[in-house]
Amino acid sequence: MGTLSIKIDPWASLEVKDYGEAMKEFGIESISDLYKKLPIKHHYFSRGIVFGHKDFGRIVEAVNQRKPFVMMTGLMPSGKFHLGHKVVADMIIYLQKLGAECYVAVADIEATLTRNIPREEAKRIAIEEYLLNYIALGLKSKKTRFYFQSDGSVEYNNLSKYVSKKTTFNELKSIYGDLTPEKIVSVFTQVADILHPQLKENGGPKPVVVPVGLDQLPHISLTRDIASKMKSEYNFVLPSAIFNKMIPGLQGGKMSSSKPESYVALTDLPEEVEKKIKKYAFSGGRETVQEHRAKGGNPDVDVSYQWLTFFEEDDKKLEKIYHDYKSGALLTGELKQILIDKLTKFLKHHQAEREKAKKVLDKFILKD
Amino acid sequence: MGTLSIKIDPWASLEVKDYGEAMKEFGIESISDLYKKLPIKHHYFSRGIVFGHKDFGRIVEAVNQRKPFVMMTGLMPSGKFHLGHKVVADMIIYLQKLGAECYVAVADIEATLTRNIPREEAKRIAIEEYLLNYIALGLKSKKTRFYFQSDGSVEYNNLSKYVSKKTTFNELKSIYGDLTPEKIVSVFTQVADILHPQLKENGGPKPVVVPVGLDQLPHISLTRDIASKMKSEYNFVLPSAIFNKMIPGLQGGKMSSSKPESYVALTDLPEEVEKKIKKYAFSGGRETVQEHRAKGGNPDVDVSYQWLTFFEEDDKKLEKIYHDYKSGALLTGELKQILIDKLTKFLKHHQAEREKAKKVLDKFILKD
Repeated sequence: MGTLSIKIDPWASLEVKDYGEAMKEFGIESISDLYKKLPIKHHYFSRGIVFGHKDFGRIVEAVNQRKPFVMMTGLMPSGKFHLGHKVVADMIIYLQKLGAECYVAVADIEATLTRNIPREEAKRIAIEEYLLNYIALGLKSKKTRFYFQSDGSVEYNNLSKYVSKKTTFNELKSIYGDLTPEKIVSVFTQVADILHPQLKENGGPKPVVVPVGLDQLPHISLTRDIASKMKSEYNFVLPSAIFNKMIPGLQGGKMSSSKPESYVALTDLPEEVEKKIKKYAFSGGRETVQEHRAKGGNPDVDVSYQWLTFFEEDDKKLEKIYHDYKSGALLTGELKQILIDKLTKFLKHHQAEREKAKKVLDKFILKD
Repeated sequence: MGTLSIKIDPWASLEVKDYGEAMKEFGIESISDLYKKLPIKHHYFSRGIVFGHKDFGRIVEAVNQRKPFVMMTGLMPSGKFHLGHKVVADMIIYLQKLGAECYVAVADIEATLTRNIPREEAKRIAIEEYLLNYIALGLKSKKTRFYFQSDGSVEYNNLSKYVSKKTTFNELKSIYGDLTPEKIVSVFTQVADILHPQLKENGGPKPVVVPVGLDQLPHISLTRDIASKMKSEYNFVLPSAIFNKMIPGLQGGKMSSSKPESYVALTDLPEEVEKKIKKYAFSGGRETVQEHRAKGGNPDVDVSYQWLTFFEEDDKKLEKIYHDYKSGALLTGELKQILIDKLTKFLKHHQAEREKAKKVLDKFILKD
């Protein structure tokens, strides 16, 4: 893995101020040119929210040649499904539209081992918080394999054991810092999650892409390293990854399930969300209206504006908000109201879709 | 585990000079009183070859009350099946006669991880070297579950992951010394082997006994420790163990598959065995016949005599050999010949049985 001067901790979320710096440091390539070759557009790419990749070229090729490829993601069944999770879900669904077969792993083994979440509780959270929201956001059951780590096939489980031979304590320590036996088992299970779509029983070697935040880079690098050492036995294609910027927490810093004042959950009532944003959203505005009108606000640090870069798909509208806020024409209260209106509309629609989703749950969890 | 002043290395066989000392040190209890309560006799017990136990009382109780109990053993599919393996096999078959359901785990995952043995090769060795010899020695297919670690059920695999939470690196290091990721995974798989007969899918909690050499004590202790920490989730009965003395290698020291001059394999031709014994068997005799007649030999260090304590079931015959050798009436060549005759007879019979065993293999490996 080399020595990382920017400490990346896959066991906690992370805020990266300078993504350009991080890309250089971690050998992540810019995605802007590859993105242009994709047949469907997404503002996360055009705006640099998805900013980099590893080996995404082979995914673009598969899309354009209509060859099989896989989107692989894992979810930690703990806490509320919030806007940060939505960003990943949007990428999952976008990749499904591009033709990916979607593997969605519920990390219930990991939840039990590293967070003491009982298996049944993990199952409930995975379905009620994650799956229902995925479906409401547009995930289709066709070509989706939603599975629990604890329901894995025998070859998946064997793979999670065989990978142990392809790494060392030193490599694991350089990535994860302090190790415990259960962390190691969790890591190997996660490596098997990413590699098992390429097992013979799943159709053999093929391109796989994992959409992740930069905090997951060490997992990706370890998995690629292990995959390269298993070529002769499994002939794995090295998994690809795309990296997205994290949506900031309401008060700046990271959005975290353990800090309710940092997130908006997709099941929050619109009235609660309005209150939260008015009370907590970190503002780039000036101390007084007079000063704001005279000197203008700073959209680059304003959380409401940052959130709109994720949710306002219309480039022109977004640009106008940026300039109006910067010039002082748009006040902080007005900017917050734009976000509130946007989120209210989204949440009302989403929560209705989520109710409908309950009726199709079976298609996802009773398959096979 | 506490600090062990006698170093026990479960990754290598071991020679223990003073079993009494070892028992005191490791909290192993004498088995002689419990043995008397068993309805079938075996000279390994009456002679102290099986010398100690942990919680064997609950097995004796199950035998006498005709309640279900399990014999659990694992085999490392590598090398030749030799007389050392026969001693364990004898115990397995004895426990089956006492009413045990027999679980026999082929440690193919472990063989691949720690000995680079390919899976198919491990499978071949397990069947040709181990299973055929077990059957020829008397193992019955009824109530025997002969399984490969790599074919384990999903709950067996999950168990092998959940146990990781119930130990620490320090505990593992104190037992196994230097750790590697693959050693850790092997250990957890082995712990799951011992505990999984008590899973709901296998009928739930019940007494389980593992017949082992003293070198396996750390595995047993770790497994008991982990089992005690899983009481609330699985309600495991702490596994019991019986400990047998190791049969010495031909030249003294340990019998090892990697040293052909140390063992007699159960597939060796009687003529080869005769040569091996004449050439290699460490003798307790004197330099010259005259001296031997005058001062007598030392059966306590004589390997031919030691082997007879395992294979000559007739106590009176054995006692006579002991005294005749000690008095000098019996010469080393004569003692060796007694052993050669005994082994020749055994091997001829066994090898014929092994041919017959090929016809019933299916009953063991095509079940379920």
